Amino acid sequence: MSRTTVSHVLSGNRPVAPATRTRVEQVIDELSYRPNGLARSLRIQRTHTVALIIPDITNPFYPMVARGLDDALGVRYRTLICNTDADREQERAFAADVSDRKADGMVIVAFQVEARDLADILELGMPLVSIGDRIDDPRVDLVLPDDEHGAFEVTRYLLSAGHVRIGFVWEPDGPGQHRLEGYRRALREVGIPYDEKLTALGGWNRPGGHAAMARLLEASDPPSAVFCANDLMAIGAIAAARAVGRRIPEEVAIVGYDDIDAAAMVSPELTTVANPAYEAGQAAGRFLLDRITGSYTGERRTLMLRPGLVKRRSA
Amino acid sequence: MSRTTVSHVLSGNRPVAPATRTRVEQVIDELSYRPNGLARSLRIQRTHTVALIIPDITNPFYPMVARGLDDALGVRYRTLICNTDADREQERAFAADVSDRKADGMVIVAFQVEARDLADILELGMPLVSIGDRIDDPRVDLVLPDDEHGAFEVTRYLLSAGHVRIGFVWEPDGPGQHRLEGYRRALREVGIPYDEKLTALGGWNRPGGHAAMARLLEASDPPSAVFCANDLMAIGAIAAARAVGRRIPEEVAIVGYDDIDAAAMVSPELTTVANPAYEAGQAAGRFLLDRITGSYTGERRTLMLRPGLVKRRSA
Repeated sequence: MSRTTVSHVLSGNRPVAPATRTRVEQVIDELSYRPNGLARSLRIQRTHTVALIIPDITNPFYPMVARGLDDALGVRYRTLICNTDADREQERAFAADVSDRKADGMVIVAFQVEARDLADILELGMPLVSIGDRIDDPRVDLVLPDDEHGAFEVTRYLLSAGHVRIGFVWEPDGPGQHRLEGYRRALREVGIPYDEKLTALGGWNRPGGHAAMARLLEASDPPSAVFCANDLMAIGAIAAARAVGRRIPEEVAIVGYDDIDAAAMVSPELTTVANPAYEAGQAAGRFLLDRITGSYTGERRTLMLRPGLVKRRSA
Repeated sequence: MSRTTVSHVLSGNRPVAPATRTRVEQVIDELSYRPNGLARSLRIQRTHTVALIIPDITNPFYPMVARGLDDALGVRYRTLICNTDADREQERAFAADVSDRKADGMVIVAFQVEARDLADILELGMPLVSIGDRIDDPRVDLVLPDDEHGAFEVTRYLLSAGHVRIGFVWEPDGPGQHRLEGYRRALREVGIPYDEKLTALGGWNRPGGHAAMARLLEASDPPSAVFCANDLMAIGAIAAARAVGRRIPEEVAIVGYDDIDAAAMVSPELTTVANPAYEAGQAAGRFLLDRITGSYTGERRTLMLRPGLVKRRSA
């Protein structure tokens, strides 16, 4: 029995004579005698391991995803964490590693590689769920926090409070475009034309939000409310407004997006949109389990998650 | 060849005839032909997997530990996350699961089970590192953030600013006792007697810190500075001081512990102690790698990590 033959039996990629297959399976069965979990995994072709590929576990969004996933998978499964630092080479390397480890499934968040980079994993039949990105392959289930809707809701909230000149601090990457689109749709619905002069780039961080807000407030006709596309930028914007003596929300209302822990701790407490990170992880876990156990074998599934408005003091 | 024989070869627990051993090893070798990572792991007895057992990945301390561990282990290793919610039964179940999976090593943080609950894992020879807890077994390496020292330093900082009546908001579980001891040592060194009336319990959270601060400020001779044993309590304490019109730090100085993200975002920005979570994870990873690769085979190692004072605006 050659190594290649064993490999074919294990992978199922090539036809193998029934007698040979039986012998190999018998050995695998022998090897799988408890308590060796590895050998058992080899026999049942199930590792009870799911890989979670994310940019960085220290960014507060991802621990919530990880916890939702873990809770949905239940006690028999463990999650393998892969931090890619948003590096495409790292992402490719992890995908290969996960395929080699025979994880039972994989969840990818903020993945930049294209469907063809996932071909090896998809060929193996490994269930795959993407959170946030519309991976262009019918075998990948999708869980999509509805950023466009969240941005629409928070902009509509500002409009309903009587604001007409509403600024927007954002960045074009990541969820930026969807949040811009929600902002524009809310304005469009009430007939307010989109004015690029009311927008500024804010780098997704506090210093960037601070600088963007300072620029918007320097204008001769500054906005009376500003929607920042994430909470860090909004917290920077609050500091910038304070620095030029503007009272919040009386003189300028400020809202953020994500509802990070700090949003409830800053002064004034930040009105924002709760990004459903935990729910996204949980939904991804349920999709995966359905695929792993075979209880669902149909077409790709897509779940849109609606973010909720969190009203506090800043607007 | 019986299942039991295969099991004995795999476990190495019982003597097996050389010829039998050779045959089993040959089959394992055949099975380990790439690309099956499971079979290879079975042959080399290495899974390149390390388990991290923590209370909850969504508590900001643990993602930093996880990232430090991951970075120290390097790209060949992956971390399996186990959230115990500080439940002892869960901790025991995870320890058994990790042993069954043949992880190459295990890192435990804030583990409540006793050394005897880890006996199975230690018998297997699996390397084990404890962060924060002095697990009483000579086979467990220890990484200990020096809470007593951090508390001593921040109290000494308040003393050096001229404060004499220094309050302490704390809780007796977790790192509480070590932080109390650091506070008491700093007072003792300058001859100030410990006064229990200047202490209050704060539940490790914002509402608890708020209530504790309110009680301390109601006294006829309130403290001029308050050390809160974590940042959440300190952020609650800031709100409580504000609510009764006290200016910070002019009328009451407030310091925290941990340096969570929000500490730099609240107003006034919080002076605190940076808990070396990333460094602890990194050190644990280095200890484990040394054991896994056999480059260190000596006595248990203990590393104390010194937390650093972070001076901002609140004191």
